[in-house]
Amino acid sequence: MANAGEMRISAEALTRFTVEALKKLDVPDDEAKMVADVLVLADLRGVDSHGVARLNNYVEAIEKGYIVRKAQLKVLSEWPAIARLDGCNSLGQVVGIWAMKRCLDMAEKAGSACVTVTNSRHYGIAGYYAMMALERDMIGISMTNSRPWVAPTFGSKAILGTNPIAMAVPAGKERPWVLDMATSTIPIGKVEVAQRLGKPLREGVAIDSSGQVTRDPDAVYKGGALLPLGGTAETAGYKGYDLSVLVDILSGVLSAASYSANISNVWGLSPIGHFFMAVRIDAVRPVDEFKAMMDQMIRDLKESPKAVGQDRILVAGEPEFETEAIRRREGIVLPPKVAQTLRDMGQRLGVSGILP
Amino acid sequence: MANAGEMRISAEALTRFTVEALKKLDVPDDEAKMVADVLVLADLRGVDSHGVARLNNYVEAIEKGYIVRKAQLKVLSEWPAIARLDGCNSLGQVVGIWAMKRCLDMAEKAGSACVTVTNSRHYGIAGYYAMMALERDMIGISMTNSRPWVAPTFGSKAILGTNPIAMAVPAGKERPWVLDMATSTIPIGKVEVAQRLGKPLREGVAIDSSGQVTRDPDAVYKGGALLPLGGTAETAGYKGYDLSVLVDILSGVLSAASYSANISNVWGLSPIGHFFMAVRIDAVRPVDEFKAMMDQMIRDLKESPKAVGQDRILVAGEPEFETEAIRRREGIVLPPKVAQTLRDMGQRLGVSGILP
Repeated sequence: MANAGEMRISAEALTRFTVEALKKLDVPDDEAKMVADVLVLADLRGVDSHGVARLNNYVEAIEKGYIVRKAQLKVLSEWPAIARLDGCNSLGQVVGIWAMKRCLDMAEKAGSACVTVTNSRHYGIAGYYAMMALERDMIGISMTNSRPWVAPTFGSKAILGTNPIAMAVPAGKERPWVLDMATSTIPIGKVEVAQRLGKPLREGVAIDSSGQVTRDPDAVYKGGALLPLGGTAETAGYKGYDLSVLVDILSGVLSAASYSANISNVWGLSPIGHFFMAVRIDAVRPVDEFKAMMDQMIRDLKESPKAVGQDRILVAGEPEFETEAIRRREGIVLPPKVAQTLRDMGQRLGVSGILP
Repeated sequence: MANAGEMRISAEALTRFTVEALKKLDVPDDEAKMVADVLVLADLRGVDSHGVARLNNYVEAIEKGYIVRKAQLKVLSEWPAIARLDGCNSLGQVVGIWAMKRCLDMAEKAGSACVTVTNSRHYGIAGYYAMMALERDMIGISMTNSRPWVAPTFGSKAILGTNPIAMAVPAGKERPWVLDMATSTIPIGKVEVAQRLGKPLREGVAIDSSGQVTRDPDAVYKGGALLPLGGTAETAGYKGYDLSVLVDILSGVLSAASYSANISNVWGLSPIGHFFMAVRIDAVRPVDEFKAMMDQMIRDLKESPKAVGQDRILVAGEPEFETEAIRRREGIVLPPKVAQTLRDMGQRLGVSGILP
């Protein structure tokens, strides 16, 4: 049962609601469907911060004209194994799906390909696009830059995004290996939650405006910042900082979109950049053999000796696949605040009869 | 001045010594030069653990027949933008330079390219190969799997390598941005140093054989392991664990070399795999504009507000370029143990008149 104020809803109904809400804003049918698919998959996989909890951001950005509602997409340059694409300020999911499809098509012919994208917007979970490679027996990679929340090592100001890296790799009998990680230690969503619950942050994940490590969630919003993966310099946080810049270079500088420091904190206002990559496995070795070795590696990891007190070693994507199986069966439970926002949105836009 | 037992030596002399030592083992001239170049560049850049301190490992592995001394190199499959190469158990540096050159040539035609390599050996610093892209105005990426030293999150046994990721990106007036990082929190070399000095490790970088965090360097060698970047699960160490697996997949599974868990702890005995990638910038946008944006991003990072007590924000590769400038001018100082090993080696192999 859902608790007071929570909403339990099926993925199908949530998708339908999202599509109808976007259509009320004159977003074309197919585009609304793409945005809904990416958002609801995030909710299914337990990445709640990137699911329909963000729908209101999309609605507002469309209403304010930050995002173009009928996608315009342009190819700026194309070689056999690389392209630069222009999202022309269209919805990030529409841009992302189009760009990754093109990348997969190019890799089909050349064996591997990269695509860098300018003038896009928030595209949801990076993993969605990486996973598009799986059904074609390819390896998929997806990255994006984003609004600044992370400080460089020895810095005090947030000028880097949480710039995620995703990679999806097909396996045989085992589930695919699917990495989707922010290059910060924690996502900004965890600070929001700590603030709401009045709980302190974990040590070494955030700094205040003077650059000192803090456990106070408020301090992050008052000019502080998240720390990159690894934490402070003492614990090799400069590696997470460098990984964030790596994403910024491939997504933002290569595409000419710009880097995180220049992305406005106003949601959806600034263009952002993505980077996609695809590798055709059978251009390299027989897919069956590759998948069998993936299976064996995954089993070797899972069956290796556990630390005292632990009974399980996980592989990338495993918790998300398990959450997805449960939520497809039992529905998605949205917290009271998100549920209320969706109800209000439905009322305002005239979408009725879908939410429970 | 060098302290007692230390050896101060020029890069040129150290290169000459390395070449002569390898030639005594019937390594061909050009191959000896490649190995020497990669090892000495590591010493110049301050990555002392990957410099001539390792030469003895190479010598022993060649003498034992683990490494083939006259390189045999085979192309197993080739598409316009991807190739699988076979190093045929030749010296890792010879394999790496050959493979990265081929990758750059492919990217020149296709716009981007990947190369995955099987049956190679330890190739020194990953960054060397990434940096080969710079003179051709390309972005270079280099990864390798390696002997197991790192435990997966919740595990107690080292079954992952410190599997490094390197990326080199040209800039304009600023120095190139050069990342070269192990996906563990610290390299195993730091444990060796702590053990030698009788000092404790930093908290959260290693575990003992039961999987508990330890500060005792001995415990790492007695069945313990390094923790991946991020440390324990509480501080998102699973991200470093996943990055290590990412490197294993692209270097080891894609190439069919195998993954870290199967790599012997006997130095040089097992085949390992590498992954290289190159992106031709002018296939995407004018190189000058790209470099100007890199310059601006680097300056924005460096000029952003500092944490209290800090006066400098670094970018990837900066400390290494500074160390290189000093060591090219003042020579490389080798610690007593390394100096003695080189002297003994010179005597044994009959290389005289080079070491000071």
